[in-house]
Amino acid sequence: MSLNKLLSPNDHPDLAEERRRATFNTDEMSAIIWENKQNWLRRREISKIVAEHPELHDPCSQAYMTRAEEVENAARKATTMIRKLGELGISPFEGEDIFHLTNEVIGIRGHPLAIHAVMFIPSLQAHCSDEQMHFLEMAMSMQIIGTYAQTELGHGTNLQKLETTATYDAKTQEFVLHSPTTTSMKWWPGNLGLSANYAIVVAILMIDGKNYGPHHFVAQLRDLKTHMPLKGVTVGDIGPKMAYDSSDNGFLRLDHYRIPRLNMLMKHSRVAPDGTYTRPPHAKMSYSAMVHVRSHMVRHQAMFSAYAMTTAIRYSAIRRQGEITPGAGEVKILDYQTQQYRLLPQLARTFAFLFTGQAVKNIYMRVQKDMAKGKVDEMAELHYVTSGLKATVTHLSGEIIEQSRMSCGGHGYSKATNFSEIYGVAIAGCTYEGENMVMLQQLARYLMRAAQAATTGHSLSSLTDYLVKPCEKHSLIDKHPDKTYSHHISAFEWAARRQIIKAYERLVSLKNQGLSNEEAWNQNAVELNRASRLHTRLYIAQKFYDKVQTIVDGPCRAVLEDLLHLHLNYELIDMAYYLLEDNYLTGQQLNHLKEDMYRLLQKLRPNAVSLVDAWDYSDHELRSVLGRRDGHVYENLYKWAQASELNRTQVPPSFEKYLKPMMEEARKMSKL
Amino acid sequence: MSLNKLLSPNDHPDLAEERRRATFNTDEMSAIIWENKQNWLRRREISKIVAEHPELHDPCSQAYMTRAEEVENAARKATTMIRKLGELGISPFEGEDIFHLTNEVIGIRGHPLAIHAVMFIPSLQAHCSDEQMHFLEMAMSMQIIGTYAQTELGHGTNLQKLETTATYDAKTQEFVLHSPTTTSMKWWPGNLGLSANYAIVVAILMIDGKNYGPHHFVAQLRDLKTHMPLKGVTVGDIGPKMAYDSSDNGFLRLDHYRIPRLNMLMKHSRVAPDGTYTRPPHAKMSYSAMVHVRSHMVRHQAMFSAYAMTTAIRYSAIRRQGEITPGAGEVKILDYQTQQYRLLPQLARTFAFLFTGQAVKNIYMRVQKDMAKGKVDEMAELHYVTSGLKATVTHLSGEIIEQSRMSCGGHGYSKATNFSEIYGVAIAGCTYEGENMVMLQQLARYLMRAAQAATTGHSLSSLTDYLVKPCEKHSLIDKHPDKTYSHHISAFEWAARRQIIKAYERLVSLKNQGLSNEEAWNQNAVELNRASRLHTRLYIAQKFYDKVQTIVDGPCRAVLEDLLHLHLNYELIDMAYYLLEDNYLTGQQLNHLKEDMYRLLQKLRPNAVSLVDAWDYSDHELRSVLGRRDGHVYENLYKWAQASELNRTQVPPSFEKYLKPMMEEARKMSKL
Repeated sequence: MSLNKLLSPNDHPDLAEERRRATFNTDEMSAIIWENKQNWLRRREISKIVAEHPELHDPCSQAYMTRAEEVENAARKATTMIRKLGELGISPFEGEDIFHLTNEVIGIRGHPLAIHAVMFIPSLQAHCSDEQMHFLEMAMSMQIIGTYAQTELGHGTNLQKLETTATYDAKTQEFVLHSPTTTSMKWWPGNLGLSANYAIVVAILMIDGKNYGPHHFVAQLRDLKTHMPLKGVTVGDIGPKMAYDSSDNGFLRLDHYRIPRLNMLMKHSRVAPDGTYTRPPHAKMSYSAMVHVRSHMVRHQAMFSAYAMTTAIRYSAIRRQGEITPGAGEVKILDYQTQQYRLLPQLARTFAFLFTGQAVKNIYMRVQKDMAKGKVDEMAELHYVTSGLKATVTHLSGEIIEQSRMSCGGHGYSKATNFSEIYGVAIAGCTYEGENMVMLQQLARYLMRAAQAATTGHSLSSLTDYLVKPCEKHSLIDKHPDKTYSHHISAFEWAARRQIIKAYERLVSLKNQGLSNEEAWNQNAVELNRASRLHTRLYIAQKFYDKVQTIVDGPCRAVLEDLLHLHLNYELIDMAYYLLEDNYLTGQQLNHLKEDMYRLLQKLRPNAVSLVDAWDYSDHELRSVLGRRDGHVYENLYKWAQASELNRTQVPPSFEKYLKPMMEEARKMSKL
Repeated sequence: MSLNKLLSPNDHPDLAEERRRATFNTDEMSAIIWENKQNWLRRREISKIVAEHPELHDPCSQAYMTRAEEVENAARKATTMIRKLGELGISPFEGEDIFHLTNEVIGIRGHPLAIHAVMFIPSLQAHCSDEQMHFLEMAMSMQIIGTYAQTELGHGTNLQKLETTATYDAKTQEFVLHSPTTTSMKWWPGNLGLSANYAIVVAILMIDGKNYGPHHFVAQLRDLKTHMPLKGVTVGDIGPKMAYDSSDNGFLRLDHYRIPRLNMLMKHSRVAPDGTYTRPPHAKMSYSAMVHVRSHMVRHQAMFSAYAMTTAIRYSAIRRQGEITPGAGEVKILDYQTQQYRLLPQLARTFAFLFTGQAVKNIYMRVQKDMAKGKVDEMAELHYVTSGLKATVTHLSGEIIEQSRMSCGGHGYSKATNFSEIYGVAIAGCTYEGENMVMLQQLARYLMRAAQAATTGHSLSSLTDYLVKPCEKHSLIDKHPDKTYSHHISAFEWAARRQIIKAYERLVSLKNQGLSNEEAWNQNAVELNRASRLHTRLYIAQKFYDKVQTIVDGPCRAVLEDLLHLHLNYELIDMAYYLLEDNYLTGQQLNHLKEDMYRLLQKLRPNAVSLVDAWDYSDHELRSVLGRRDGHVYENLYKWAQASELNRTQVPPSFEKYLKPMMEEARKMSKL
């Protein structure tokens, strides 16, 4: 009886062979990956329901649709799905069920209600005062479709400089929303282009000529019956993007557009009828939403990575190319050390990101509760942690996905694999929700405060305790580490501490040379980013380690220990620079780390397929011909290709119009 | 009078300000980039001609076309272009003119005659015997459209295991071409899907049951008049890909398809009417075509990188975001150290790749001549060099392009920038013409032979002289290097030598442990790849250095010296690991390298825009709203977006069909 529970009689023999080699029960691992058995079984149930309902399927591969077709198809599926939620007992706006259902039915390319669910409703929840709950009710019951319009053509991160204004007119008790310039147009919000009829517009509040900074306003954009843009509203789609083809990201220009006073969201700041402004009690309350989104991003990036890894590792087990021993027959490409090195450390990272994402989600939930009791400090701290995580994880996920794609050779380049969409969607995370360089600088601000505290022997919080811990050099050369990996973690701490302190000292030194605080900061920005990345990589390593300690199932724990061990070695080699610099590590120790890594590649290889199988993605959700569970790749690639729009006729129109005249002319000439 | 000759009265003031700061004459630099003044002026002339001929333009942005529209549009432009070649005095199949014309007219997304020009004709030239010249004549005069069909669904690099067979039938003096399995279908060849009516098919030659390995056969695929596939031929498009949307990459299945004996290309091997087989005189002759393609690839990757850099640097000079000094106004994002660090080292790499590409092209031409005289050794050597270059440069170009894209924030994600297409096209180079891991292993074979020779004090060739040179440690801390950068180059040599020797010793040690040659090689493959990369990075640094020495114009040389210096520092820091490992470099020296790098970022920043301007890409060729020469980005992004297919109606069909019923139902429910 195979420990890999996905093994099935119709499997490609090469995949079946891999599955029979599993040393752990994949069902147990699935429960770990999806946090518990209940979640995992619920996922299965949802996948099964989707499989049984053809009205939730695509009529053809999404790769074959035009954007207009995609947008319409996504609207069809999203509304059909919403209608079934009651019957399925799924809440439309929160939890894992709707997330998984959406991935199954819609995929990752976007749909017309996406921003309504992930931005519009949460923002209303966060900012509606008691007398404004009707907005939330209309949104939750799907009477309106909303979006969140913040970014402008000319402005992203720096909200203070947004150009859209909301000028209070006390006479009529209205706000006048206005886009004074081309660059002030709202630009990028998802579903703003065609689908939304409402938006939360972030605009600079102006009262009696005074600038009160950015605030949230609810604006109706389109007529509820005809869907035509209202007077004063210019709105449309911003055109195709690197990915997310079925999302109608939009632009919005407002021309002296009036909304009632009570359309400003007033839970925190208020404008009285006479124009009197009241400040919010806690400026830091606004962290919470960002932290929420970024903590989810870490898990989502792990899932994107796992999509890519599933395809790459399964395909590497059925693709045969070249012989290692001449005459012995072509081997699976997964047998090449280069292929193992390309994939297995990235698989380890995928698990590291997953477990880190789970951990920060749990911390967020705890801290959120504390905040309700008035404790806001930990949320501020989590803001810094998730800023660093967001930047580090999105960047590395891009690497995971592209390495996965390229490891599939030419076929990885085909849209039949879904790789380019996964990459496009994942890598967008480097830019949205705070551009990565800005995110790293955010964390660096915290780290510099921690470094300053450390100069007097103090720690700002448990997050940066390692800055003041007595540090000693440990040997990393044990062939059989003690399973606590404490020396590995110490090495991460050493690297992070050293870079943080160096960056701090350089900052002080630049200021001592006469630079202003801001100039010194800017001229130190690259070193600060390095510090943030190292701190974050330590954090991830620690969370991976912590999670593995909680695993009860022996065989699962054993293989996760191997993955953890590989992760720690790979990351330390990748950051060896910081460890060699001051001889924390010797060249010989580094060699041992490498030899250990090569050994781990061989050790993990037999479990590689089972480790991706355990994510338990259905073929439907994966949308990848190369990643099919059964491994029957080639015949299905052929089947997929035959559906290409270019194969609808045997002879393309370009032949009669252009190619034939050219060739006939040439033949005539040759006869002259 | 500005030294930047692209400065024009209608420039965005922020770009104009940058251009006025140029310290060198951009016309002089253009002549260096395009190798001489004549080439550069000819480029300008071609750009001008294209600008003046609307029949060579696209009716709308390529991003708005379906694949069918793109393929037809590309056929229209390609055939129109071909017709004009005589009038323009441009040769259709070789030289820079046709390359530049194609980039202007078609862009980089492919066209129906592309493989005809770059693979079909060169292969005929290389393999036609005297009695087969009619194939070449038909191809050159465009009476037929050919492609090159080698890769199969189940087989790429390992040609010996191709499954397509060509069985000689002496009775009829024909070859029977046959695809015995699904995996034996030809898969991927460009233009095979719809456009080509001929192909060179690579198939295993079988005579009397004996396998003679892969050979080239000319097969007509489609009827010349009707373009219908001939009997025994199944052919079609393989569907959409990550990029190259207007290229009809295809599949081909041959069912006992007969061709005359003289359709096997017989310049090298021959099959006599009675089936007697004659071997080619030089097995290594076949290197030449691969070397040719790969040496061009290096330059092309530099050009793709320069496209991306042009957009990123120009946009970074007009995008303003955030204040460095509070209250002093928002700064150009190029003023942030993080942005400079993201872009300028990549710009230096772009120049490094360009000059390396020029150098190997010139070496190729010389060696090609020598080969005609029977000297084949240097071509074999160049094969190894270009294998390493191909792998290293394509990988790093991907990094250059993605860093460029992300440096543009959200707007970089829009197809209005062309970034995603440039990335998709450039990164394909990691996979085609020999997958990168395989390429690095090729070079490693040469390096291991060189390492073995070095153990007895011998050098295989000037390429690996540094393996036997007396090596000493140099100080890299001079604040004012002597402009020979000899210490920098020594450090590259040190790193490469050390890794090559270490990899060699590890290989020997694995064999001594009892592994077979092949097993030892496989278990050492990652270390071998590291050796190949370091050797190649040394080669690139050396070629960049060599080129700068030839520059006569003082101001151009000065800024190129700065770029070279930045490149050397950045690369050495990037590979510091290898230098710190055995204390070639101390932590303090590394610090100096970094400080020097930060200083160079500031020094180069004022020339950044002028350095990309000097590539002299027309807006038409660049196809990037963000990269426009005049910098008027925002109004043109808006204009571009308005053309989105989704903006053809104010209200999308999805509203009436799906969104309205959902909302109306919800409103009814709420009233109950």
